[in-house]
Amino acid sequence: MAEPAALAREVARLGYVLDDEQVGAMRAAVVAAEPAIAVLRGRPVPMDGDADPAHGDRWARAATTARERPAAAHDGGDDSGEIGAFLAAFAAGRSTPDRAVAEALERLRTAHVALNCTIRFLDERATRAAAESTRRWADGRPRPLEGVPFGVKDVVDVAGVPTTAGSWCHGDAPAAASATVVRRLEEAGAIPVSKDATTEFAVGGPRPPRFGAVRNPWDAGRWAGGSSTGSAAAVAARAVPFALGTDVGGSVRLPAAWCGLTGLKPTAGAIPRTGIFPLSWTAETVGPLTRSAADAARLFALLRGPDGADPRGVDLPPFAPDDRPDLAGLRVAVIGGEVTAFCDADVRAGVDAAVGHLAAAGADVVEAELPHGAAALPIGYEIVFAEAATLHRLDRDRWDRYDPVTVRRISQGITTPAVDYLRALQFRAELQRELDAVLTDADLLVMPTCPSTAPWLPESGSEAVVVVDGETFPLYAAQSRTTMIANLTGAPALALPSGFAADGCPTSVQFVGRPHDEATLLRAARAVQARTDHHRRGPSPA
Amino acid sequence: MAEPAALAREVARLGYVLDDEQVGAMRAAVVAAEPAIAVLRGRPVPMDGDADPAHGDRWARAATTARERPAAAHDGGDDSGEIGAFLAAFAAGRSTPDRAVAEALERLRTAHVALNCTIRFLDERATRAAAESTRRWADGRPRPLEGVPFGVKDVVDVAGVPTTAGSWCHGDAPAAASATVVRRLEEAGAIPVSKDATTEFAVGGPRPPRFGAVRNPWDAGRWAGGSSTGSAAAVAARAVPFALGTDVGGSVRLPAAWCGLTGLKPTAGAIPRTGIFPLSWTAETVGPLTRSAADAARLFALLRGPDGADPRGVDLPPFAPDDRPDLAGLRVAVIGGEVTAFCDADVRAGVDAAVGHLAAAGADVVEAELPHGAAALPIGYEIVFAEAATLHRLDRDRWDRYDPVTVRRISQGITTPAVDYLRALQFRAELQRELDAVLTDADLLVMPTCPSTAPWLPESGSEAVVVVDGETFPLYAAQSRTTMIANLTGAPALALPSGFAADGCPTSVQFVGRPHDEATLLRAARAVQARTDHHRRGPSPA
Repeated sequence: MAEPAALAREVARLGYVLDDEQVGAMRAAVVAAEPAIAVLRGRPVPMDGDADPAHGDRWARAATTARERPAAAHDGGDDSGEIGAFLAAFAAGRSTPDRAVAEALERLRTAHVALNCTIRFLDERATRAAAESTRRWADGRPRPLEGVPFGVKDVVDVAGVPTTAGSWCHGDAPAAASATVVRRLEEAGAIPVSKDATTEFAVGGPRPPRFGAVRNPWDAGRWAGGSSTGSAAAVAARAVPFALGTDVGGSVRLPAAWCGLTGLKPTAGAIPRTGIFPLSWTAETVGPLTRSAADAARLFALLRGPDGADPRGVDLPPFAPDDRPDLAGLRVAVIGGEVTAFCDADVRAGVDAAVGHLAAAGADVVEAELPHGAAALPIGYEIVFAEAATLHRLDRDRWDRYDPVTVRRISQGITTPAVDYLRALQFRAELQRELDAVLTDADLLVMPTCPSTAPWLPESGSEAVVVVDGETFPLYAAQSRTTMIANLTGAPALALPSGFAADGCPTSVQFVGRPHDEATLLRAARAVQARTDHHRRGPSPA
Repeated sequence: MAEPAALAREVARLGYVLDDEQVGAMRAAVVAAEPAIAVLRGRPVPMDGDADPAHGDRWARAATTARERPAAAHDGGDDSGEIGAFLAAFAAGRSTPDRAVAEALERLRTAHVALNCTIRFLDERATRAAAESTRRWADGRPRPLEGVPFGVKDVVDVAGVPTTAGSWCHGDAPAAASATVVRRLEEAGAIPVSKDATTEFAVGGPRPPRFGAVRNPWDAGRWAGGSSTGSAAAVAARAVPFALGTDVGGSVRLPAAWCGLTGLKPTAGAIPRTGIFPLSWTAETVGPLTRSAADAARLFALLRGPDGADPRGVDLPPFAPDDRPDLAGLRVAVIGGEVTAFCDADVRAGVDAAVGHLAAAGADVVEAELPHGAAALPIGYEIVFAEAATLHRLDRDRWDRYDPVTVRRISQGITTPAVDYLRALQFRAELQRELDAVLTDADLLVMPTCPSTAPWLPESGSEAVVVVDGETFPLYAAQSRTTMIANLTGAPALALPSGFAADGCPTSVQFVGRPHDEATLLRAARAVQARTDHHRRGPSPA
């Protein structure tokens, strides 16, 4: 690595404006990441089609790798879960969308006072939509999610509303159009009621300078997790039945884990990202945070499929949900080895419990490893930060107003050589092969979502840490250890509650599946949730 | 740019082994390329879907952008062209594949003595295939190209035969399988008779250390052009009716231009590259060198379509050739402005003549510009060299045996920052929009293939130059100026003879079209070739 003065010159030559302190933090971060990159640099790739970094895209495009399954009994719109409860109340006349939206906004305001979870309340827009939804119920022509309120992470555009991305530097003008995901939910009758807090640009630290930290509903001294931080807090606080988050390295699954929720990171290309403030084109996905897997399945069916605008969208056959409660014939692989060895005992107990429920539901359990799984985190960050640095060069004159954690993280990508970036993209296909090998004998992988429970909120200016078996570890080296695997490979992944740790915080288990086989993950999660009540338990009201 | 000593350290850190002289040449090349990159670095891109570098892939995936056309009268297998002449001779019993292959091998040996065009003669393999083809003709069950001999650039695998890529460092072992393009032609009955000379790895200089320079059949003091150098020479010398070349920045079209041939660079993703020694995943294509557009159309129909292995292959509707000789209703845009201003007067006269023939055939002629067309060359090289450097890091211990021109060129990619590489990929979409704007009012673009005619072979150790209006210019800064546009955007492009310059050398015109609309380029070229005999004229026998 170049000396600080030479590095500062190189940074300036490449069109970035960083001060000495920022260059120093960048240099330390790059030096820390270097060993993992150096290993990859020295490892050969086959000189054939597999050498093409696009080989890693192809895996996610193979919509047929999900195994054939019997047609589902119904369309996935069952009555279980929170969404079903709203719809049932509307159908029975016990409530109306007018009332439900007003109540959601009131609950959100209460939650926000306690947790700081909301960037903007969409009263006027939501109230107007609720009136229309109320009419539709009265007229007997409700759409599938008619009148159900939801939250939207503030990196996702809602037409007519500014998108701040949690930064001082964005959100001056209202978004001209809604993101595809918001549009699809609105077309199904759902009503966005809030723009939820996010870490800055979905990459900054737990204390974003503009809006501050989001507290965990289970313990207000702890962080809700990120980057979909306000979305998780709002759903966990029961203010809204679901919210939309984005996941680049675990940003849906980690706050879901720490807030006791179900969080779905879809297969790469399954849900369009159009209208979302981008962080990483390769790794980024958008997905729902819900209480139950039943709700996640219902939302996924509506959100899935190309929109003609996201250039990485893939054509897909219609989603076939699978809610057979009996898991006979399903094989699950519990992932051991290096990648999961670093894990708190209480979290591990939750994984074991979930595996027990899967077995009780009829699944066969095998053990497996991902030999290079532990490399996913540093290699994934290398890709994400290089792409983020490319995007944020446009904003070069405003980095002095960014969260210092944002700058430290994305500035690592400024001097990443293209040869290393491309080698990292090649690694995606290598890791896919390891997943494929496990998925030959198993239908899904089981591992911890995160090695720890929710961390304490760091003091202003100090580094966030997680606690694993009583020891502290830096947040960013630890939290995404098992989540980044799915971002790097493109695999679908689902985080779901697995119980509670001795500290009273929720624990979480993660299922990872074949590309475009979300149905199997959701089926297994529903089977677990049929046997447990973790996902129905909530924190004490604030 | 870092000072030489710091640069050498950075090169070593990234896993490359270069000596001081190589680092010096690399540094000079990077410094020369820097101004064009710096301009791009400072230009903003929209912060939406267009910012995703994959946006540039999507354009080529849009197989429907080719306009609807009437169904063709036949399957493209007409009797014109060289291929038709072979098939007619077999059908009429005037020749047999046995004889034709033996004659082709004999002509190739004669041409090789004069031109140095061949790396390997495939006598045994070709003779065996010819016997089978002769039987099939005798049995009345010939396949579409039954018994027609052809040449294969030696970066393309032929099963059982080593692929040298023109280098001392490759070709120790026979290829296990044929490249998809070779397999498809063999399955159609065609017979590979030679592995043709290539510049080293399709990127080195006119004098590859292992096999030496290929002379131009029109003037043995001149170079045949590259990188598909032996393939062009063999076809121009009438040794084989066609050959397969690869095109990353003009490597099919430039030797076609300088040897008086028709050369097709297909749309990105149209023809699979599986089994081809890679140089650049983004820019590389494979296509035929022929005398006539009729032959190019016949081959393209057989070569096109995904093979399930090239991860960038795209699904395509069946190829619909279009051989209506009347061009009424066709609109052609003659490209003026900066990108074509640098052009020899004799080459320009050829372009004007071709435009005249298009107009005489009924086409409407308009004038247009590509405002950023001149940036395509440096930006394209930036992408190609970064990708090539990624591939050749595997070979780090053997760069001392590479052609120094190979090293100078691809080493430029070693330190390219990922943020610049990704910005260059974004530029592809910007240039596509400029092409789209022209293609709104026109069906194809017309421009010179190359600013000059074939250059004199450089003395050993001296730089190759081209001559434009009597002045000399460095080869690599000049030759691919108008060809790289199609590699960068993914557009299809066709080079065809446009006449002869005062120096006696062939001149060439290039047609560029909408993605996956090769049919329109080939239709226009056939109309020109129906009015001219440039493509039928050959050099004096060696």
